[in-house]
Amino acid sequence: MLKKIAILGATGYTALELIKILLRHPHAEITALTSREDTRAVGAVHQSLAGRLDLSLENLQPNKIANRADCVFSCLPHTASAAVIPALLDLGMKVVDLSADYRLNSTDVFRKWYDVTHPDPERVGKVPYGLPELFRHEIIGADLVANPGCYPTSAILPLTPLIKAGLVEPTDIIVDSKSGVSGAGRKPKLGTLYAECNESISAYGLGTHRHTPEMTQIISTAAGRPVELIFSPHLTPMDRGILSTIYCKAVSKQGKEPSREELYETLRSFYKNEPFVKIVEHLPATKDVSGTNYVHISLRKVGDRIIAVSAIDNLIKGASGAAVQNFNLMYGYPETTALL
Amino acid sequence: MLKKIAILGATGYTALELIKILLRHPHAEITALTSREDTRAVGAVHQSLAGRLDLSLENLQPNKIANRADCVFSCLPHTASAAVIPALLDLGMKVVDLSADYRLNSTDVFRKWYDVTHPDPERVGKVPYGLPELFRHEIIGADLVANPGCYPTSAILPLTPLIKAGLVEPTDIIVDSKSGVSGAGRKPKLGTLYAECNESISAYGLGTHRHTPEMTQIISTAAGRPVELIFSPHLTPMDRGILSTIYCKAVSKQGKEPSREELYETLRSFYKNEPFVKIVEHLPATKDVSGTNYVHISLRKVGDRIIAVSAIDNLIKGASGAAVQNFNLMYGYPETTALL
Amino acid sequence: MLKKIAILGATGYTALELIKILLRHPHAEITALTSREDTRAVGAVHQSLAGRLDLSLENLQPNKIANRADCVFSCLPHTASAAVIPALLDLGMKVVDLSADYRLNSTDVFRKWYDVTHPDPERVGKVPYGLPELFRHEIIGADLVANPGCYPTSAILPLTPLIKAGLVEPTDIIVDSKSGVSGAGRKPKLGTLYAECNESISAYGLGTHRHTPEMTQIISTAAGRPVELIFSPHLTPMDRGILSTIYCKAVSKQGKEPSREELYETLRSFYKNEPFVKIVEHLPATKDVSGTNYVHISLRKVGDRIIAVSAIDNLIKGASGAAVQNFNLMYGYPETTALL
Amino acid sequence: MLKKIAILGATGYTALELIKILLRHPHAEITALTSREDTRAVGAVHQSLAGRLDLSLENLQPNKIANRADCVFSCLPHTASAAVIPALLDLGMKVVDLSADYRLNSTDVFRKWYDVTHPDPERVGKVPYGLPELFRHEIIGADLVANPGCYPTSAILPLTPLIKAGLVEPTDIIVDSKSGVSGAGRKPKLGTLYAECNESISAYGLGTHRHTPEMTQIISTAAGRPVELIFSPHLTPMDRGILSTIYCKAVSKQGKEPSREELYETLRSFYKNEPFVKIVEHLPATKDVSGTNYVHISLRKVGDRIIAVSAIDNLIKGASGAAVQNFNLMYGYPETTALL
Repeated sequence: MLKKIAILGATGYTALELIKILLRHPHAEITALTSREDTRAVGAVHQSLAGRLDLSLENLQPNKIANRADCVFSCLPHTASAAVIPALLDLGMKVVDLSADYRLNSTDVFRKWYDVTHPDPERVGKVPYGLPELFRHEIIGADLVANPGCYPTSAILPLTPLIKAGLVEPTDIIVDSKSGVSGAGRKPKLGTLYAECNESISAYGLGTHRHTPEMTQIISTAAGRPVELIFSPHLTPMDRGILSTIYCKAVSKQGKEPSREELYETLRSFYKNEPFVKIVEHLPATKDVSGTNYVHISLRKVGDRIIAVSAIDNLIKGASGAAVQNFNLMYGYPETTALL
Repeated sequence: MLKKIAILGATGYTALELIKILLRHPHAEITALTSREDTRAVGAVHQSLAGRLDLSLENLQPNKIANRADCVFSCLPHTASAAVIPALLDLGMKVVDLSADYRLNSTDVFRKWYDVTHPDPERVGKVPYGLPELFRHEIIGADLVANPGCYPTSAILPLTPLIKAGLVEPTDIIVDSKSGVSGAGRKPKLGTLYAECNESISAYGLGTHRHTPEMTQIISTAAGRPVELIFSPHLTPMDRGILSTIYCKAVSKQGKEPSREELYETLRSFYKNEPFVKIVEHLPATKDVSGTNYVHISLRKVGDRIIAVSAIDNLIKGASGAAVQNFNLMYGYPETTALL
Repeated sequence: MLKKIAILGATGYTALELIKILLRHPHAEITALTSREDTRAVGAVHQSLAGRLDLSLENLQPNKIANRADCVFSCLPHTASAAVIPALLDLGMKVVDLSADYRLNSTDVFRKWYDVTHPDPERVGKVPYGLPELFRHEIIGADLVANPGCYPTSAILPLTPLIKAGLVEPTDIIVDSKSGVSGAGRKPKLGTLYAECNESISAYGLGTHRHTPEMTQIISTAAGRPVELIFSPHLTPMDRGILSTIYCKAVSKQGKEPSREELYETLRSFYKNEPFVKIVEHLPATKDVSGTNYVHISLRKVGDRIIAVSAIDNLIKGASGAAVQNFNLMYGYPETTALL
Repeated sequence: MLKKIAILGATGYTALELIKILLRHPHAEITALTSREDTRAVGAVHQSLAGRLDLSLENLQPNKIANRADCVFSCLPHTASAAVIPALLDLGMKVVDLSADYRLNSTDVFRKWYDVTHPDPERVGKVPYGLPELFRHEIIGADLVANPGCYPTSAILPLTPLIKAGLVEPTDIIVDSKSGVSGAGRKPKLGTLYAECNESISAYGLGTHRHTPEMTQIISTAAGRPVELIFSPHLTPMDRGILSTIYCKAVSKQGKEPSREELYETLRSFYKNEPFVKIVEHLPATKDVSGTNYVHISLRKVGDRIIAVSAIDNLIKGASGAAVQNFNLMYGYPETTALL
C-alpha cells in the first residue's frame, strides 16, 4: 500500500528535489504540500513539475496534515520545524525533519549557534541522526529522524572512519568546503543573485557557520573520540554540489605514519557494503555525483598531512536523497528505493 | 579642468560600470553618488570599488547635487529620472539620462508602454537619442541626452543602414535577442537568482517588452522609413552581453536580391569612420565584446532572408559606455576617451 | 527476462546519459560498451559511473556484439553507424541508431548535407523516425529506428500540429534555437573549451546546419504539407537544454486569424495522451525540463505572427531518453519505463 | 617615444589580456606577435581584437624580433621561453618572462618539479621575481624579469607580511586555492571542455603542483624565514579569478596570540603605499577584482588558526597585469600606467 506523503515548506529547492524523487518511488504518493503564504499549483511554483503532480500548496494545520498523510517531510526553517513536529508525532505520523532542529544533542549548543530557544527541548538528543552509513540501526523503524546538513554529510563520511581508526589527529582538522548556490535557498537575496554569484567564488561564515557544531558532535559520537575542526564554507558558481577538501594530520604508530594504501583500505572496508559511498582513486568532481545520492571520496598524502576529498550533490545526498533513504529505512523498504 | 560628476541611483550594475569607466577618464571626477535608501560607502555597496573611490551614497536633492557637480548621469528608474532632471537642467547642469524617460518621442506611446503619465511631457520628443553613430550632431553640445536601451542599441545599429538603403523590407523584421542576467537589474527577485537562471535559457516579454517601441521609433527616424518589427528577448545564463539575431526579408531590385557582398558593403561604408562598430565576417560571440564599448556585426543570407547578428556588452555599449561616449560629445572631448 | 544491451561509441555524453537511464530500466542490462580506441573501465571514462557499472570499453566486431547483446544503441558518428548496423541487423539484433544515418529519406539529400555517400543506401527511407509522438505505430516492433536529432525534436513537436491544422504558413518559418554545449560532443575542440563558451552566446551554422533538412522532411511528412524553414542554432553557456523560439505566420481563415486559444487547443488536443509533452501557458525555461524526457511547449501571438517556444533536454528527449522511449516501443514495454 | 613590443606565444589567454592592456598603454606599441604554427591575423585568433590591432602572427627568430621591437613579453611555455630569451637579451632587448623558467633559484629544484633540464642555467637565481610589492627595487631598470605564477601571487602577498612579522608558524601552512578555468590554458583538452568543467568543482595536483616550490622559495626569501606549506589547487567553474583560503597557525608571544586587529595592522602597514593591494574587512570574492590588477586580502581568526583570504584575477594580477606593472618599472613609467 502506498504511503501518503506530506511535504511541509514546499516552495524551496529541497522540496522540489524531494518531490522529483518521490514521484519515482513505488511506495509513496504525495498527497499534501504546505506553505504559509503560497497557494498556487505546484506546477506554477516549480515549473519543472508542470503536468506531473496535480496539487496546490496549502496552509495546513497538523490535524489536517494527519488526515491526508502518513508521513511528513519537513522542509521548514529551523524552529518552525520543531514547532510543528511534536503535534504531528502525537497524531501518529512519521517525520523526516530536513531542518537543523533535531541534529544537535544539546539545547545549549543549539541556542548558542542558532541564537534562539529550542521549541521542543525534550526530544533534543533523542532523535536519530539520519546518516544511515553511521546510524542505520537507530533509523530503522524510527518515528522521527533528523536529516543531516549538507556540509556535515560531506565531512562526516570521509572523516569518521579515519578518526575511529586512530589514523588522524582528531583535533587538528580543517574542512574547506565549496558549495553550489542552491544551498543558500530560494528566497530572493542580493547575495544569491545570478549577477553576483556567477563568475565568482568567495568564502563566508569562516568559523561561524552553524554546521560546525553538527560536524564535531556527529564525528565525535560516531568515532568515539572528541573532535575539533575548522570549517570554511565557500559559495561556488554552480547550482549544486559540495566538494570538501579536508586536511588532517596523520598519526604515527610505532614511528610510522599510515600509508596511503592503509588509509584507503580503512575507508574501503568501513564502507564496503554501503550502496551510496564510492571510494575512488582519482580526485572526484562534484559533477560526478550531480543529481545522485552517491558520495565519492578520495585520499592523498602530502607531507605529514592526509587530504581527503569528498563530493556530494548538496540537494540529494546532502538533503532530499538522504531524506528518502531515511524514509526507506523507517518503513522497511529497500534502502536504495527510488535512489539509484 | 575636471568635470565634476554626480551619479544618481548608484547602487546598480550600470552605475558600477559607469564609475569604473569614469575612474579612468582624464577629464572626469566623481563627486557625488546618490541613493534614496543606501548610505553606505561605495566600496561596501560595490566591493570591487574597495579602496578606489572614497565616497558614500547620499540622498541628495537637486540643489545639493548642483553644488557638487557639473554633470549628472542618472541611473534612476523610469519616471523617477524625469522627475528630477528638469530641476537639474534648470540649475545649469548637463545630464545623461540612462533611464527610458526621454527616448520615446510621444507621451502617448510612453503611457501605453510604461503605463504611467510622463513627469516631464514638454521635453518629450526634443531630447537627442544618445546613439552617436546615428545622432552625433544632435548630441554634440547638448545639455540632456537620452541614453539608449541595451536591446535597442543591438538592433538599431545593424538594421538602420540596411533599411535606409532599401535592401530589406522594413515591416517584416524579427529581432531575437539573448541578454545576460545583469540586464534585469540588481534588485533581488526570484527570477534572477543564480539557481533559477543558471543552466537555463528562457524567452520573456514576447511582444510586450518596452524596448519594442524604442526600436521601431529610432530605426524609423534614422532610416527615414516606417518600421515594424517583432522583438523577442531571452534571459541567457551569463552576466553580461546581448546577442541579437535579426531576421529580415531581402528586397529585390530589378528582380535581383542584394548579394551578401552588397549587404556587407552597405554596413561597412555606413560605419567606416565609427570607432566602436566592427563589421566582421565571422559570427560574433558576446564574449568578443565583453567589457568593451564595441559592437560587432555580421551578416548571412539564407534563402530570401538576411540574418544580421550583432553582439554588444549590455552594460557598456548598451548602457554606461554609451553614456560616457555621449558625455564626451556633450563636452567636446575626444569621443573615445576612457572607452578604448 | 532482461534484454542485453550493447552501446556503440560509449565515450560521449549521449552514451553516458543512455547508460544512466538504462541502469534504472527494469528490463535492460548493459553487457557491452564499445570504442575504437578507448579500453578503460567505464568508470574511468565517465567518472560519474564509478562503482556503478563493471564494464570496460572494447573494440568489438558485430558478431562479438551479437554474442553478448540482444539490442544495440549506436552512438557512433554518422556513416560509421550505418557501416556497422546492417551486419547487426543481419545477426538478428534490434538497433536504435542515434546517429543521423537513417533519418533522411533520400540518399541525395544525405550526400548534399553530409558530403559523403551513404553506406547503406537500401535502407534509406524505410526506417521509422523515432519520434513516438508522431510515428509510434511504425516504431512499435521495429528492428531499426532512427533516433531524432536534438534540434529537430524541439522544432518538429511544436510545429507539426499547427501546420497540419493549417493554422500557420508552412513556408515562412524561422526556428531560432539555443543549445547547451554538450550538444557539440565530447571531443576536445577550441570552440567548446570552457573559457571560450562560458559567459558567451553565439550563432553558428546559419542556413547550413545539418538538422535543417531533417526538420523540413519530418514536418512535411507528419503534417502532410511541404515545409520550408530557416534554422538558426546558437551555442549557449549551459551544459544541456535546447530552447527553440519558432516564428510562424498565422493563416487567416475567412478573414480571421486563429486565436491564441484556438492555437493552444490545437496543441493540447494533438498531444492530449502524450506522457512527455506538456503544453504550458508560461514561457518555458530549459531548466524546467533538464534531466527529463519532457518537452514543454508554449505559444504567443504577436501581430500576425505566432511564436511557439519549446524546451527540451538535448541529451534526454533530444537523444538518449528518446532512444529508450523507442526501445520500450520496439520491445513492447510501457513507453515511459525508466523515463519518469 | 613609444616602446615597441613583441609578444611571444600570442595565441593564448595571457597574451590576449596583455594585448588588451598594452592597447591602452600610452608608451607602448605592439609591433610583433609570434606563434610557431598560427599565421592568422590576430583578430581571427582572438575575435575580441577584430579591427583593433592590425597584425598577423608570425614565426619569428630572435634577430627578426629585435629588428621590430624594444621589449619582449614571453608567453611561451616553460623551457621554450628560456631557450629563446638569452638571444633576445644579447640583442639588447628587455624581456618580461611570463613562463616559469626564471622564477626558481635552483636548477635542481627546477629539474625536480618540471622534469627537464633548464635551458639557461647561468641566469637561474639571478633574475628578479616580478612581484613589485616585494621586489620593486630589483625590478626597476632590470633587463629580464620573471613574472610570477598566478597561484603564488595569491599566496605570497597575504603570507609574507605575517611570516616576516613572526605572527604565524612558517611551517604549518595550508593554501587551498580555487582558480578559474582560463588558468589551464587555451589548448583543447578533455578536462577543460565546457561540459566537463561547468557545474563542477574539483581538486587537482594535491601536493604535486609546480607552483608549490615557487611559493615556498619566494616567501622564504621575502620573509627571511624558511617556509613549508601544502598547496591544493581547485578547478572552479568560472573563466577567471583565484581565491586562496590560507590556513596558518598563530604564534603566541609572551603567551598571547596576535589579535585580529594586530594582524590586520601588520598587513595594512606593510602594503600602505601599494596601489594594487587592498586590505578589506569583508571576505572578498573573485568578482571584486575581475578584470583588474588589484588583490583583495582579508583575515579571520578561528580558534588558534589565522585564515587569510586573497582574491586576484589570475590573468591580470596573476599574469598580464603584473607583466605590465613590471614593464612600467623596468622602463621607469609610473607603475600604474594602463592598469587602473
